[in-house]
Amino acid sequence: MKQNRRDFIRNTVITAGALSALPSSLSFPKTLNESVMKFRFYPYTLDLRHVFTVATNSRTTTPVVLTEIEYNGITGYGEASMPPYLGESHQTVTEFLSKVNLEQFKNPFEMETILAYVDSLALKNTAAKASVDIALHDLVGKLLNQPWYNIWGLDKNKAPYTSFTIGIDKPDVVRQKVKEAEEYKVLKVKLGRDTDKEMIETIRSITDKPLTADANQGWKDKQQAHDMLHYLHENGVVMLEQPMAKEDMEAHAWLKENTPLPIIADEACQRLSDIPKIAHAYSGINIKLMKSTGMREAYKMIVLARAMGLKVMLGCMTETSCAISAASHLSPLVDWADLDGALLISNDVFDGTTVVDGKVTLQDRPGIGVVKSKK
Amino acid sequence: MKQNRRDFIRNTVITAGALSALPSSLSFPKTLNESVMKFRFYPYTLDLRHVFTVATNSRTTTPVVLTEIEYNGITGYGEASMPPYLGESHQTVTEFLSKVNLEQFKNPFEMETILAYVDSLALKNTAAKASVDIALHDLVGKLLNQPWYNIWGLDKNKAPYTSFTIGIDKPDVVRQKVKEAEEYKVLKVKLGRDTDKEMIETIRSITDKPLTADANQGWKDKQQAHDMLHYLHENGVVMLEQPMAKEDMEAHAWLKENTPLPIIADEACQRLSDIPKIAHAYSGINIKLMKSTGMREAYKMIVLARAMGLKVMLGCMTETSCAISAASHLSPLVDWADLDGALLISNDVFDGTTVVDGKVTLQDRPGIGVVKSKK
Repeated sequence: MKQNRRDFIRNTVITAGALSALPSSLSFPKTLNESVMKFRFYPYTLDLRHVFTVATNSRTTTPVVLTEIEYNGITGYGEASMPPYLGESHQTVTEFLSKVNLEQFKNPFEMETILAYVDSLALKNTAAKASVDIALHDLVGKLLNQPWYNIWGLDKNKAPYTSFTIGIDKPDVVRQKVKEAEEYKVLKVKLGRDTDKEMIETIRSITDKPLTADANQGWKDKQQAHDMLHYLHENGVVMLEQPMAKEDMEAHAWLKENTPLPIIADEACQRLSDIPKIAHAYSGINIKLMKSTGMREAYKMIVLARAMGLKVMLGCMTETSCAISAASHLSPLVDWADLDGALLISNDVFDGTTVVDGKVTLQDRPGIGVVKSKK
Repeated sequence: MKQNRRDFIRNTVITAGALSALPSSLSFPKTLNESVMKFRFYPYTLDLRHVFTVATNSRTTTPVVLTEIEYNGITGYGEASMPPYLGESHQTVTEFLSKVNLEQFKNPFEMETILAYVDSLALKNTAAKASVDIALHDLVGKLLNQPWYNIWGLDKNKAPYTSFTIGIDKPDVVRQKVKEAEEYKVLKVKLGRDTDKEMIETIRSITDKPLTADANQGWKDKQQAHDMLHYLHENGVVMLEQPMAKEDMEAHAWLKENTPLPIIADEACQRLSDIPKIAHAYSGINIKLMKSTGMREAYKMIVLARAMGLKVMLGCMTETSCAISAASHLSPLVDWADLDGALLISNDVFDGTTVVDGKVTLQDRPGIGVVKSKK
């Protein structure tokens, strides 16, 4: 099975553009040979350890696309992860990435220009764009010979604990998952169906750990959401993501004023430009690289959210340790981290940021800090 | 005169804390010897080429304090500039900097932590804080062996033209200054007294270059400001800074709606936290390192202003090429630059960012890109 998948990867390698001898203006300060950025990408499919159920669907795999930017013999790694309900797929991502021509840029450090170009190629496609952004960050970090937490001026020891996600399931499966999550200091409970109180009661029969909760827009009625928020507060839940439909700003603004828990925008907040629009209706935002188009815009989103008095959560999709490691470099800046995506899969292909005693633990390596693993 | 000033500097060198053998955690990726950050600062006085008159005062000198952070044999340079009407002085800055203990930090890359500590030492003192921020950026850029425009991912060729400031003066002096400013593509006119139309007419008798204008809160009446803004628009002025008292938000909000020129907040916008408060009343903000506490917060201010749809201007005080060079690394991100501060003084002590044919022109050197000059 794994062998077949690796063969699939090898056979579907796609190289965007051929190597050509463009002149390079990057002569300072390390004199690099004239070089161009070679961009490659590989579809891959993640196997999930458990069937994963949220308010709107269940699944056992997640399609991803792994990317590489090679420059002057150094390779930066990136990733797009495409949970099916978000609209991207192997097909849309490879179509988008086929349009990306990085050879026109002489200097990989000009990330603002390069990533503005990538963003301009098409609307949406946020995971595809993130896969370029992450690979470029990894490359530039390696050219600087520094991890991004250092380049951003952050203390990696301030990285938070990560929550571990408990999907919606039958009580015996939930109990089993909670027991498996013994290492984690915070559990994140998926809600939004008619079993919400059963989920909480089942978890509370086993542990008194603090919980975060995510309704994934599953609640249809404002009063129901209000009552559930009070119930959750009484049962040791510390914040709630996206209780109702992302379009219903008025309901969220009302909930923010009338309930005891911070209300965090997830589906309602994708990118930087969304923040001023939703700031009145939520207490904070959940930033995910696959929504934000990557690390550069995610950093800007944290700056903006903080200046507007919002809480910040850093989330993920099911992803390899590539995208998880990329996100983890921002984690010293956030209130809550939910970076368990690589722990939920059985066929990771990178070693990078890990979880040690529940805490997000970054590697002392340049770039995003990953190496390809032998799996 | 100059010799005396240099002797003054030598004799007043102040070292904050003595070298001690704290262990360093910075073992990655370049293995540096165990080292601490040694912080030094030197009062200095800039001689202005012309008597400088704005709406509220005239002067011939500007007090500054030059700073250095030495770490592992590498020195980062910084500067505080204290135009007297802003409340800081040689005394207040040296008092503030005497409290700064950088030896407690093991890793200069942890800028977020270090600069939060510096900011917490006292309220205000923004120029003093900037002098630490700039020296730390210069040091970290040198440790990365990269200029900050590269670390921030910017294209230095996108640096804008700088305006050259024409202070309030008699017509013959104004004519002389305009002639001396032949190299500059944009002139910035100081207004806010009863000679405003005379200033514009005098300049327009010599040149049809685009003008920017700065009233420095000099206009007392909303209707007068309104009429002047229309007059300025008809005379080729492209934007106006701070027409009225910074406290009068309502008047500026009204002017923004009822006049043809962008209204830029200068005195009304010092730091990141001011931007959400003034965004409704102004079209943009003028960021100066001496107000923002330095480069790190200035970068965040640009991110925030852009996300809120504001124009961005990058300004300065009369400063050496040290603080001007520091600011210039942000200039590829802004709409207007007013970085003529070092051109207005006769005793600069740094070589760094220059103006070539009116354009802000950055050096290809690590950090903020300055070297001590032989003056």
